[in-house]
Amino acid sequence: MNYSIIFYIIGWILNIEAAFMLLPCLTALCYGEKEGFAFVATILLCLCIGIPLTLKKPKNRVFYLREGFVTTSLSWLVLSCMGALPFLLTGSITHPIDALFETVSGFTTTGASILSDVESLSHCILFWRSFTHWIGGMGVLVFLLVLLPLSGGSHMNLMKAESPGPSVSRLLPKVQSTARLLYMIYIFMTVLLIVLLLLGGMPLFDALTLSFGTAGTGGFGIKSDSIASYRTYLQIVLTVFMILFGVNFNAYFYILIRKFRQAFQIEEVRAYLAIILTAILIITFNAAGCFQSFGQALQQTAFQVASIITTTGFTTTDFNIWPQTSRTILVVLMCIGACAGSTGGGIKVSRIVIVVKSIAKEMQQMLHPKSVKKIRLDGKPVEHEVIRSTNVFIVVYILVFTTSVLLVSFDNLDLTTNFTAVSATLNNIGPGLELVGPMGNFSVFSGFSKLVLIFDMLAGRLELFPLLLLFSKNTWKKF
Amino acid sequence: MNYSIIFYIIGWILNIEAAFMLLPCLTALCYGEKEGFAFVATILLCLCIGIPLTLKKPKNRVFYLREGFVTTSLSWLVLSCMGALPFLLTGSITHPIDALFETVSGFTTTGASILSDVESLSHCILFWRSFTHWIGGMGVLVFLLVLLPLSGGSHMNLMKAESPGPSVSRLLPKVQSTARLLYMIYIFMTVLLIVLLLLGGMPLFDALTLSFGTAGTGGFGIKSDSIASYRTYLQIVLTVFMILFGVNFNAYFYILIRKFRQAFQIEEVRAYLAIILTAILIITFNAAGCFQSFGQALQQTAFQVASIITTTGFTTTDFNIWPQTSRTILVVLMCIGACAGSTGGGIKVSRIVIVVKSIAKEMQQMLHPKSVKKIRLDGKPVEHEVIRSTNVFIVVYILVFTTSVLLVSFDNLDLTTNFTAVSATLNNIGPGLELVGPMGNFSVFSGFSKLVLIFDMLAGRLELFPLLLLFSKNTWKKF
Repeated sequence: MNYSIIFYIIGWILNIEAAFMLLPCLTALCYGEKEGFAFVATILLCLCIGIPLTLKKPKNRVFYLREGFVTTSLSWLVLSCMGALPFLLTGSITHPIDALFETVSGFTTTGASILSDVESLSHCILFWRSFTHWIGGMGVLVFLLVLLPLSGGSHMNLMKAESPGPSVSRLLPKVQSTARLLYMIYIFMTVLLIVLLLLGGMPLFDALTLSFGTAGTGGFGIKSDSIASYRTYLQIVLTVFMILFGVNFNAYFYILIRKFRQAFQIEEVRAYLAIILTAILIITFNAAGCFQSFGQALQQTAFQVASIITTTGFTTTDFNIWPQTSRTILVVLMCIGACAGSTGGGIKVSRIVIVVKSIAKEMQQMLHPKSVKKIRLDGKPVEHEVIRSTNVFIVVYILVFTTSVLLVSFDNLDLTTNFTAVSATLNNIGPGLELVGPMGNFSVFSGFSKLVLIFDMLAGRLELFPLLLLFSKNTWKKF
Repeated sequence: MNYSIIFYIIGWILNIEAAFMLLPCLTALCYGEKEGFAFVATILLCLCIGIPLTLKKPKNRVFYLREGFVTTSLSWLVLSCMGALPFLLTGSITHPIDALFETVSGFTTTGASILSDVESLSHCILFWRSFTHWIGGMGVLVFLLVLLPLSGGSHMNLMKAESPGPSVSRLLPKVQSTARLLYMIYIFMTVLLIVLLLLGGMPLFDALTLSFGTAGTGGFGIKSDSIASYRTYLQIVLTVFMILFGVNFNAYFYILIRKFRQAFQIEEVRAYLAIILTAILIITFNAAGCFQSFGQALQQTAFQVASIITTTGFTTTDFNIWPQTSRTILVVLMCIGACAGSTGGGIKVSRIVIVVKSIAKEMQQMLHPKSVKKIRLDGKPVEHEVIRSTNVFIVVYILVFTTSVLLVSFDNLDLTTNFTAVSATLNNIGPGLELVGPMGNFSVFSGFSKLVLIFDMLAGRLELFPLLLLFSKNTWKKF
């Protein structure tokens, strides 16, 4: 294990976090809030540890996938621990586990909260809370790639460990250029959303924080009723942008280079949109009784479906009281998640597509044992390696899911609460059903269960393996 | 598709079913019940269709895996439809879907019932109800193999389609001898159980029916409180035999040929016993408050764990009121199921073992991409084919599970009821939680949902693919 380069990168992560924290400082200045000092203190602490670590350039530049996984996991842990400090220092959250839960929920773009009254928080804390979504959405290591001149292999190995989806596609020949391009698209779309919200009459502070939450598909709101009190226009804009941020960013790349046909031919994106449409239609009819008009039902359903499948987690209505079919569909959408290569969580649509195709192939092979058929995605054959790891991913996912539900069950809450709480955290969504539904929050769980759910949020964001490998003795063994 | 041989085999299935129905006829005679005429009528109908079909020997002896799947699925459907007639003719069950549900539940050894008062049924109906478990437990096609001289490949292809587990192992060089041996072990163990129950003072009728239910890991009882009213000795005997019938029958084969070490070294059996022990220990402590003494807690927990993991479904206590952790463990056990090559259902322990090993291998490969490591089971390397199909099996399982929960949700019952009802039928267990818990029954569902659950029971017993392939257009296409 090449420790020197791991510490070097973690040092940079701390420096970057310090830089990011300047924004909430600025917010505190604008609103004249004394809570700003908590951020100043945290910045100083980050720099005190970060700068010494980055001064010593690592001599050994060897950086395998193993180092990539460990660096990614540790970076996210360090990021979360430091990010939790302002909550504790300002007294916004009193218990360390709660503060860590809230911060991990932010960075992993989950949006599950232990707070019952967010409106009592100061502006700078609310800003930081939402900003963590934006930072975590595209990935902080991907951001690091843009800035840091590391040697060849390390880029790809970091990217592989942090990026969501079954396989990483390089849009441009150099990984660094790909990362830069992704961030440019990300920033452009965020700014566009802010502008559209401002045009709709939303106050600047609200527009900024909600845009961060939407872009990162996070879900922290700044009001107790999440998005319910905003005008229909604003809700529709957010619906559209939630869906857009759940699209595979490759599509935007194709649009950028004017290959429109290719953009709309990505099978994952088509499946993603088809699932959204189907879900909206079924729920609109199934839950129509909960609304005053068909139009309202359609708009509210679209918002909720977009919010759940992209794993954002904003809410405008209490879907906990919807009929069972609608609730069940939401639970299924939670697990499916958004596209690979987007900011959303969940299993990812492309994995579902691959799995469904591999089932069809398996059945074909049962009928004709000698037939040889390759699974194709977007016209190209899918590598055997990708199919195998997709199957294993889903199996590991179920194992982590089951174990978590079992561990959380010691709190003796009902099965639906436990099941959806794990689903909402492992898939980085936010709200679940029953006690953790849109009107509830995660403070009902014990400290132990919160730690389990923190693990689930990180495991979900980093797609299971980086975090699990931290606990494998093979990872730490010498070759 | 070779239709002539398929019809020929189905003809034999009908003849065999007619033969099996002589036993309830005999029961009706002993108790002087006029319901016996329903069985006589059904026997005549079976023979009227069966005998003409078997008179014409098929000329074309070609029998591929494709024919194996179709024959198996159709045989089970025919078997169930005919088996449901006595319920309808005697008026024990009035609605055809309900009668089919009860019969499929019997043959698939599920034990889920739509009846609220079984004690009002006549002896011959109760006998037939339990006897279907015994017939379905080892598989009616396997039984056919013992009797019918078919040509070479067809044996293996029928065995593959009906036998549970990721791979079929031939204990003896000839498939037919293997089938005969399995049935001999099955009959011997059933007789042993009957004798032990009789020694414990159980009436002959009870001993016969409960032994059928235990041997087939079915779960239909003959009393409204299932097994609760029997003495502790009898409950313990049943606990032990449920566990024994959930063991891979290969172990008994090894014991038979005096290779005791090999019998106890089967990894699946060790894992199976380890899971049972762990579950009993955790639940005993977790649910201790529901019992009067530690001894009672241990005995009751052992019974319930054995009943659920072997997918039998007998109950002695209302585990629906146990603490959440215990309930959650039961749901997990439901899905794991018994060993492959036993009469139990579920995913099967060997698949879980293979999957866990393949995860470990995958993680190893992430750290050392160039390492080549084979998964080994019982010291022998597991074929790549088996691992792939195991992964695909689990993914299909989840797909069928999810779709079923969605379809059943239209009845607007709670999520735990829907989830555990699907789990209880797809895994061939019997009782679930909440409305379908030990004290409830499946009559709460609509006709449509019952059809979905009937499909799940058959899909679970035949391990998904034979039934799914019936719906694939490729199956019916000419080569």
